[in-house]
Amino acid sequence: MARRAEKPSGGTRHATIREVAERAGVSVATVSRILTGSYPASPATRAKVMRAVEELDYVANGHARALQGTTRKSIAIIVNSVISPHYAHVAQGVQTQAAEDNRLCQIGTTGGDAERELAMVQFMREQQPEAVILVGNVAVNDEYRTRMGRYAHALAAIGSRLVLCGRPPLGPEIPAVVVEYDNAGGAFAATSHLLSAGHRRILFLGRRPGYTTPDARVEGYRRALTAHGVPLDPDLEVDGTFERYEGYRMMRERLTAGLGDATAVFAANDQIAAGARQALLEHGLRIPEDVSMVGFDDLPPAMDIDLTTVSQPHEELGRTAVRLALGHAKQGGPPPHTVLGAHLVMRGSVRPIVIR
Amino acid sequence: MARRAEKPSGGTRHATIREVAERAGVSVATVSRILTGSYPASPATRAKVMRAVEELDYVANGHARALQGTTRKSIAIIVNSVISPHYAHVAQGVQTQAAEDNRLCQIGTTGGDAERELAMVQFMREQQPEAVILVGNVAVNDEYRTRMGRYAHALAAIGSRLVLCGRPPLGPEIPAVVVEYDNAGGAFAATSHLLSAGHRRILFLGRRPGYTTPDARVEGYRRALTAHGVPLDPDLEVDGTFERYEGYRMMRERLTAGLGDATAVFAANDQIAAGARQALLEHGLRIPEDVSMVGFDDLPPAMDIDLTTVSQPHEELGRTAVRLALGHAKQGGPPPHTVLGAHLVMRGSVRPIVIR
Repeated sequence: MARRAEKPSGGTRHATIREVAERAGVSVATVSRILTGSYPASPATRAKVMRAVEELDYVANGHARALQGTTRKSIAIIVNSVISPHYAHVAQGVQTQAAEDNRLCQIGTTGGDAERELAMVQFMREQQPEAVILVGNVAVNDEYRTRMGRYAHALAAIGSRLVLCGRPPLGPEIPAVVVEYDNAGGAFAATSHLLSAGHRRILFLGRRPGYTTPDARVEGYRRALTAHGVPLDPDLEVDGTFERYEGYRMMRERLTAGLGDATAVFAANDQIAAGARQALLEHGLRIPEDVSMVGFDDLPPAMDIDLTTVSQPHEELGRTAVRLALGHAKQGGPPPHTVLGAHLVMRGSVRPIVIR
Repeated sequence: MARRAEKPSGGTRHATIREVAERAGVSVATVSRILTGSYPASPATRAKVMRAVEELDYVANGHARALQGTTRKSIAIIVNSVISPHYAHVAQGVQTQAAEDNRLCQIGTTGGDAERELAMVQFMREQQPEAVILVGNVAVNDEYRTRMGRYAHALAAIGSRLVLCGRPPLGPEIPAVVVEYDNAGGAFAATSHLLSAGHRRILFLGRRPGYTTPDARVEGYRRALTAHGVPLDPDLEVDGTFERYEGYRMMRERLTAGLGDATAVFAANDQIAAGARQALLEHGLRIPEDVSMVGFDDLPPAMDIDLTTVSQPHEELGRTAVRLALGHAKQGGPPPHTVLGAHLVMRGSVRPIVIR
């Protein structure tokens, strides 16, 4: 049995590959080959080398030195899920800007669960990120405000900061950088486009009272109707979440009950639009010949289904969140608040009808 | 100016909200309101409270206590980008399984850059994850083998492990858990389906020599042609990467040069299929009336464009990676290697033609 070696003394001196080779009784080239796996080696040789590596703590101190550089600066982003194209594109923007600013970017997912969110903030905080970015739609209630207050102060205590992205600000008591986009303005433009094409009875798919994003989109929809002198009809607003299968469900249920005199659909996002479109097609209805449709987001499905939709600057949202956070880290002061605009992208899903 | 207080003595005793209130000269309720942001407060009151909080280190030790629980076990996953639906769905599977096993999941992105990947592995390693999962298509060369050897040994040195997901194994010298899916088998099935429908001249869009995923798909395509006695024609294999705009470009270039006698397209993934479809439509060609098409992945665009495609178990791939890694953490032994199957999903993008 080999005498257990003293580890190289001093905190900074590391075992060399030569010491490993000497201890294992093989050549330096063999050690290198075995550690990089670039050539096969006999199990016995491999065992000898790996024992030497272990005894000299070579993996941790030597060969893996490249894995232990100085601590990198980082940005953390927390989303419900990365399979939502919206969250994925915002996260992509965060990653891109972080890379440009020479920061690593780590993404945490919560599945929409507040407890997992708390655990994730705690976990990411250990890496001392310069900012923790929370993205997207939430129900703003007391519990939420308490939670955000906690995050904001806990992050401030380590010199970091909370960034709310695609969420409204919470007032000066909760110091957070805020980057929003103009949900109500975009919905106003989308609905106005349908109204200008002569549509008066417009289904809204994806209402969810109490949630910031759908609430703002319903508000824009209602404002446009009112501005055009069209009476609001709560029966035209259909409750559902922002997934494709929910769009399918909402439209199916409407078709089963009878579309009534509705001639157009404003889907609260493109996923809903894609699902609703499938239900319409299965029902023998075509877009835009039988039903006009506008979505919200301008993410991948929109182009494939030729959908007129509201274009949101998803990646720019993520990039702006990083830029504002790093600017705030440098300059301090009250955390900034920015609203990004949205605009309509015309495709082939809206047909003008004769104004009655 | 307030006398700077001694911090509460002892490592475990924390300042209480009452002490903060006393120091600030306000009520406990006011401190709570200000820290949670549940009601407005005057700037002067807020400043007094925040000063007391800071002096007593209350944020870090008291209010944020919920943010400083015991270290959570975690799983790390590293992908090129989360806007690729493939990576996003695998990451979703990792997250879901990690949550079921009560682990946090952090996602790192690299933009396909080896240096960022190295930095990301190093960064994530600090959190001592039980596994670091690397996902997807790579060029396997000496540099890659060296890098993976480094990761595998550096992770093993902290009792963690490397997982290669959707990548081939690298031999016993590089100890990594491997979960693959059957790229060649899926491509064989897709091509056979077109051949059975009478197509003989089939474009392959998305060749990229030296990269594991497209290489395996080309191999399955060629094997099917050979099995059906159809001669291989390198001119039918078009080089490009796995993005939608690349599918558009490849198809456009082919249409400009003239489609020749090709009657069908096998797109190496659904993104390429969506882009190629757009180019065909713009050229006045319909699917499947004029050109038949099969994709690979069965991710969101496939359903919206009615695409017959190879269904891959993306989320299951991620879940399996976590299960195998945690199993290996418990039981040790040689790291496991699993291959998941793929199957064809029939939709409306293939039309039988008369066999010549």
